[in-house]
Amino acid sequence: MASPGPALEALRAHLHQTRLLGSISSALYYDQNTVMPSAGAPWRGEQLALLAGQLHERQSSPAYAELVATAEAAVGEETPAATRRNLRLLRQDLERQQRLDPALVTALAKAQSRGNAIWQEARAAADFSAFAPALEELIQLRREQARQLAAAEPEGSSVWDILAQPFEPDIRKSRLRELFAPLKATLPALLEEVRQHQASAGEAAAPVTPELPEALQERLCAELLTSWGYDASRCQRARSAHPFSCTVGPADFRITTRVVPGQPLSAFLATAHEWGHSLYEQGLPRVDDHWFPWPLGEATSMGVHESQSLFWECRVARGRAFAERWHPRVVAGLGADPWGGVAGFWRALNPLRPGLIRVEADELSYGLHIVLRFELEVALLEEGLPVAELPREWNARMERLLGLTPANDREGCLQDIHWAEGLFGYFPSYALGHLISAQVAEAMTEAIGPIEERIAAGDEAALRGWLAEAVWPLGRSVNGEELVAAVSGRPLSAEPFLAYLKGKVAQLMG
Amino acid sequence: MASPGPALEALRAHLHQTRLLGSISSALYYDQNTVMPSAGAPWRGEQLALLAGQLHERQSSPAYAELVATAEAAVGEETPAATRRNLRLLRQDLERQQRLDPALVTALAKAQSRGNAIWQEARAAADFSAFAPALEELIQLRREQARQLAAAEPEGSSVWDILAQPFEPDIRKSRLRELFAPLKATLPALLEEVRQHQASAGEAAAPVTPELPEALQERLCAELLTSWGYDASRCQRARSAHPFSCTVGPADFRITTRVVPGQPLSAFLATAHEWGHSLYEQGLPRVDDHWFPWPLGEATSMGVHESQSLFWECRVARGRAFAERWHPRVVAGLGADPWGGVAGFWRALNPLRPGLIRVEADELSYGLHIVLRFELEVALLEEGLPVAELPREWNARMERLLGLTPANDREGCLQDIHWAEGLFGYFPSYALGHLISAQVAEAMTEAIGPIEERIAAGDEAALRGWLAEAVWPLGRSVNGEELVAAVSGRPLSAEPFLAYLKGKVAQLMG
Repeated sequence: MASPGPALEALRAHLHQTRLLGSISSALYYDQNTVMPSAGAPWRGEQLALLAGQLHERQSSPAYAELVATAEAAVGEETPAATRRNLRLLRQDLERQQRLDPALVTALAKAQSRGNAIWQEARAAADFSAFAPALEELIQLRREQARQLAAAEPEGSSVWDILAQPFEPDIRKSRLRELFAPLKATLPALLEEVRQHQASAGEAAAPVTPELPEALQERLCAELLTSWGYDASRCQRARSAHPFSCTVGPADFRITTRVVPGQPLSAFLATAHEWGHSLYEQGLPRVDDHWFPWPLGEATSMGVHESQSLFWECRVARGRAFAERWHPRVVAGLGADPWGGVAGFWRALNPLRPGLIRVEADELSYGLHIVLRFELEVALLEEGLPVAELPREWNARMERLLGLTPANDREGCLQDIHWAEGLFGYFPSYALGHLISAQVAEAMTEAIGPIEERIAAGDEAALRGWLAEAVWPLGRSVNGEELVAAVSGRPLSAEPFLAYLKGKVAQLMG
Repeated sequence: MASPGPALEALRAHLHQTRLLGSISSALYYDQNTVMPSAGAPWRGEQLALLAGQLHERQSSPAYAELVATAEAAVGEETPAATRRNLRLLRQDLERQQRLDPALVTALAKAQSRGNAIWQEARAAADFSAFAPALEELIQLRREQARQLAAAEPEGSSVWDILAQPFEPDIRKSRLRELFAPLKATLPALLEEVRQHQASAGEAAAPVTPELPEALQERLCAELLTSWGYDASRCQRARSAHPFSCTVGPADFRITTRVVPGQPLSAFLATAHEWGHSLYEQGLPRVDDHWFPWPLGEATSMGVHESQSLFWECRVARGRAFAERWHPRVVAGLGADPWGGVAGFWRALNPLRPGLIRVEADELSYGLHIVLRFELEVALLEEGLPVAELPREWNARMERLLGLTPANDREGCLQDIHWAEGLFGYFPSYALGHLISAQVAEAMTEAIGPIEERIAAGDEAALRGWLAEAVWPLGRSVNGEELVAAVSGRPLSAEPFLAYLKGKVAQLMG
């Protein structure tokens, strides 16, 4: 066996260039969503399509397959485990690319683009029937995709399982049902409890929503970031229609936020959320550019990514200790205290009001929005639920889980973009993020003591330091469940999340 | 002969993709200079190098040469002249690419990058001797480049002539000497006249430089752009360390400015200047995306490009009628009139003070800065001027032309970046811009009446409309001198510029 050095170096050089191309797309995406004039959109679409084509070519070409095969042939038992894991993940990704019929890839790209456009119109008109044929087509194409990929997946993988792999490696729907069962069993009753408490407390329980001047919101976001390790030589922030974070290079991180009229704390909390994503990206293993182009330098899973944003948004910024520290600053900036004290401010950071819209949902009802979508995806893909019956099923389940009924499909099954682009298997990662965040926070508490005490002392650096050691460097050396097990010593479960929620609800209801 | 249709379409598709790649570089350049965090620089450098490599490949590959040859074989006398011109220009560019030894291209790229880095340090230390070896190497490499290109150029082209072609097609140094002779003969005396007038008038002649709050400067720039046809759906403006404009797509134009402490009107005038560049780019022929990927959709020359920015900056924004219209607005915004009336404001827009630094030079001395550089370039490349003697030569000529002597090389021959990157042949385009602007303005006056009257009436749209008809659509269907002849009916000369300058000086000295 030859020394693996040259083969690995050739492969690394190829991956490096692939990463360069991908990061150019990220830079264009950032530009598009922060400053690009609207008339630039068609040309930008062409630029991104050109890069996507080059990326696909680099990730599926015979020349690349040869590089992977040569590297595989050159490694042996004495090769470091991390290198062998990298090669296994590259092989897995390559096999998936190779098994797909190019005609299907093209058909899917077109159906996604068409689906998105039709969905935009159907949603505006609250007319599901206009969207139904596009959804039907996307389901058929995704089923075909799963069929083509099946031979590369473990025995017994279902259609839904196969489609969820890019978001949550190794996940199974059976496991998700197990994880989500306690949410279904517990959250509706907890919600009802909150509802009754709020009704008996009358108006006083409704959160106050004063106008916070844009400049003040801007300053608070800047102060928040500075106190959480923002470094302007490596990071840049801007405004966009929807908050996001993206990585443009190994030392170039961008985040965005928006100011929402009538939601004075939205920009602040969104900044906390996006910064959580960015901290994770910044903490992924890329010392000396070593892992950056390799799979181990990538995020463990979407669920783990989301756990990091939710930790900083919900666990820290929506926490009581944080409210105590920031209430005086916000009040000083505003020159008034419309919340009538820190308790009111803290309640304003934690509105508990079940609603119909997922992206506006609170911590308590969010999981139920996901359970609903997960079960409907499985029903559509695997259990024969006819597309035409989706609205009826959606509304019935919404009533059962959240006690609410959409007035129309715009606030019902047409609200999310995911299915309009054929993204099935993505939603559960959002809920897994809550579960993982809670279990990781338990482990953190065991390691460094109560989180709230650290926050009270203004020592979020301790939380960041622990995550930087225990969570961020794992990258794709593990999957999401393995990460939780490694960090907490226990298998992933919903219990830490439910325990956290119950405690918070009790505290909020005083 | 086959129908040219398919061959031209194949070529167009190739050029379209080349333009897409080039515009991705522009978008990255814009991002880099407006928002990119500093630590992102090395990765950005790699991204741009990757794109540059792809661009070079697309513009010199055998496959591309084949596309050009096939298109050439398919066209005939009945093919539209514009198409044949496009093919001739593509052939010329291709031959230049093909004649260059790839080893020279690599050596030049490295020497430019090294030259830039060494120059940065040498300039900071005002130490020409540290930079001299790098300059010597760049001169040798450029001489070699000219030697390799010579066979593709008209008989009798000198080294300098060949190197200037990318900036000013078809230019000859002999022609530039002719054009610049009147500047050398006239400007020093005119400068002396101004100097004496200012000395006799005492302090009163010194322009006032009050502080203009940043928000006010920002608002004035926005109002200026709006009144000059800025359309936020196609344009975007931002801040950068040095003002620039760039085109990111057929309907995506960016410009930047900066606020300079102590120079209250700098941002305003720079905005006028960059918007002039952008208007030109926006007006290049690209109806229905027809010419955008073809040479005819490109700027005529750097001199013509500069003429458009200088027209809006000097002819319009520094004009008396414009000062009359904007003085009240600026005074209202400031709540005071530190200029003591419109005459003082107009003088502040036109400081006439010869200085050592080109980029800070006024309209009167700017041309002399260029003459100095042009003559020194020719001396270095063709007349055996030893690099070691550059500082002495520079200082002697500066004294002769402007009556000033640099205290050190930082404010002397180390001030510009151009030679540090081996850019010889570029400087004259700046002066040509002044000449072309003045001659085009004469033609405009003949066509639509006095420019100042239009400006007084707030009707800059008439100037824009005339340029949009007479100048912008010509693209590379002509070279710079042909453009001037076509627009004005006379060969390019320095007379219109000198006449304009004399008139303005007389008026300013009241």
